[in-house]
Amino acid sequence: MPDAETVAIIGVGLIGGSIGQALRARGIAGTVIGIGRDPTKLEEAVRLGAIDRWTHDLAEGVARADVVAVCTPVARIPSDCRAAAASSPKHALIFDAGSTKARIVAETEADPAAASRFVAAHPLAGSEQQGVAHARADLFDGRACVLTPTARTPIERLRRARAFWEALGSHVREMSPADHDRALAYTSHLPHAVAAALALATPESCRGLTAGAFRDGTRVAESDADLWAGILLDNRAAVLEAIAAMSDRLEDAARLLRDGDPAPLREWWDRAAGRRRLVSSPHDTDTDPNVTSGVSRP
Amino acid sequence: MPDAETVAIIGVGLIGGSIGQALRARGIAGTVIGIGRDPTKLEEAVRLGAIDRWTHDLAEGVARADVVAVCTPVARIPSDCRAAAASSPKHALIFDAGSTKARIVAETEADPAAASRFVAAHPLAGSEQQGVAHARADLFDGRACVLTPTARTPIERLRRARAFWEALGSHVREMSPADHDRALAYTSHLPHAVAAALALATPESCRGLTAGAFRDGTRVAESDADLWAGILLDNRAAVLEAIAAMSDRLEDAARLLRDGDPAPLREWWDRAAGRRRLVSSPHDTDTDPNVTSGVSRP
Repeated sequence: MPDAETVAIIGVGLIGGSIGQALRARGIAGTVIGIGRDPTKLEEAVRLGAIDRWTHDLAEGVARADVVAVCTPVARIPSDCRAAAASSPKHALIFDAGSTKARIVAETEADPAAASRFVAAHPLAGSEQQGVAHARADLFDGRACVLTPTARTPIERLRRARAFWEALGSHVREMSPADHDRALAYTSHLPHAVAAALALATPESCRGLTAGAFRDGTRVAESDADLWAGILLDNRAAVLEAIAAMSDRLEDAARLLRDGDPAPLREWWDRAAGRRRLVSSPHDTDTDPNVTSGVSRP
Repeated sequence: MPDAETVAIIGVGLIGGSIGQALRARGIAGTVIGIGRDPTKLEEAVRLGAIDRWTHDLAEGVARADVVAVCTPVARIPSDCRAAAASSPKHALIFDAGSTKARIVAETEADPAAASRFVAAHPLAGSEQQGVAHARADLFDGRACVLTPTARTPIERLRRARAFWEALGSHVREMSPADHDRALAYTSHLPHAVAAALALATPESCRGLTAGAFRDGTRVAESDADLWAGILLDNRAAVLEAIAAMSDRLEDAARLLRDGDPAPLREWWDRAAGRRRLVSSPHDTDTDPNVTSGVSRP
């Protein structure tokens, strides 16, 4: 890729490490530079083929970068993007990979140098596992990556960000930061909160009596607490709305159980299975033009 | 196994088929007879090595059985157990594999012939997948199987049921039917209701924006609606209590989000991960004598 010859990755964990491995596995970048704090983890990233070399010095790491991938926790992303903009070449593309978008976009675009290089991105490919040890070159292959451009996003950078993520195998979609945050509140942040609540609802006396439904339903409760407290608070209003919707659906289940009639309970269950299949199926812009909200450009 | 030479399985689906495959793979039974309605599925069970032969006629199928495994949906179990008792040899062991226990045990033990042969069992090894096509010879290997004897359970049959399930690789535990139903309301029935409610809470407009947390958190919403309406209604009081506990934990999450302080939210999340690990860990009767409730015998 001519405009992704040198790629700097700030934060070489599961997502950053997978970007590096994908770039190298697909021969997309010439040099991948990791930027981070912990030398042990950065050496591990070199060993695992995620980066060619590393530095603690952000300014030095991005100085010759064509692309800067900011893969730090949501709270740190805007300041990392602004720091990257201050030291990277004028032609550089900077994107993030954060799970929330509205605050990150607003705080990043408040800096003109950052705004002129920045495209907000969210690859939908996380895991409850942390760290470069769990990185995979195919993590983004066939998965959605949402870009949330605004009226301030340079169209040339948007084109390059799309090409970058498509080169990694992702299906790229565009929507506004607010639409992204509302949707992800339901499809990702709520399932995380539900997993944690489900684990806590289960009395300790039930030890050893769980099976597949509990294991899968609570899996992401093992995700990093710091990371997820940040994400949930970042998207607080939409997550509170999603939790209220979840409580209403649980109340529906309780009402059907109290009524005791199997037919409407079966019908409720079938609707849930149908909704799961629909929501999990790939988005098709040709047949369903209502889902992706267009971003108006000036 | 001398007292499991001929085994009859009523209902050769995922559980019944896996029992048959495990018996044959481990060389435990001489002959496995499938009893069911659908000749296509019964022929498939023969082809998949789950049974040696089959019949539609329950009385004929159990006539020479040393063991009868009743693997039909919970609503049908008591009548199938009574029918099996009416036609099986006096020495036969009859057990079920239903996900609820109190009603099944009461209705089955109301028949003296059934009570004299019956041990209630629940292997914790289901799946959202139905049918003998998904059966596996190792489905019960290393998994818990709960037996719920009462004062009416013949001690010799209890011993044989324990030996049978241990021969299939299960860790056998004993508790009262009521204790079983209270625990499983939290560890299995609630996660199923939560999966369905989570799927329904997700708006259709979120299509294509889901990832691992949604996929795993809603997986069991694809379970059979008939089967699960029956289970939830069978254990209605305990499931309603579990749903109320879940709603309370969701309300805790909402309160922490409204407060907006990351520290207690992180602490809540860490407690959830810890509870998940504790509850998922194997039960150890030596170190934790409080969990298994002893069954008093006359």
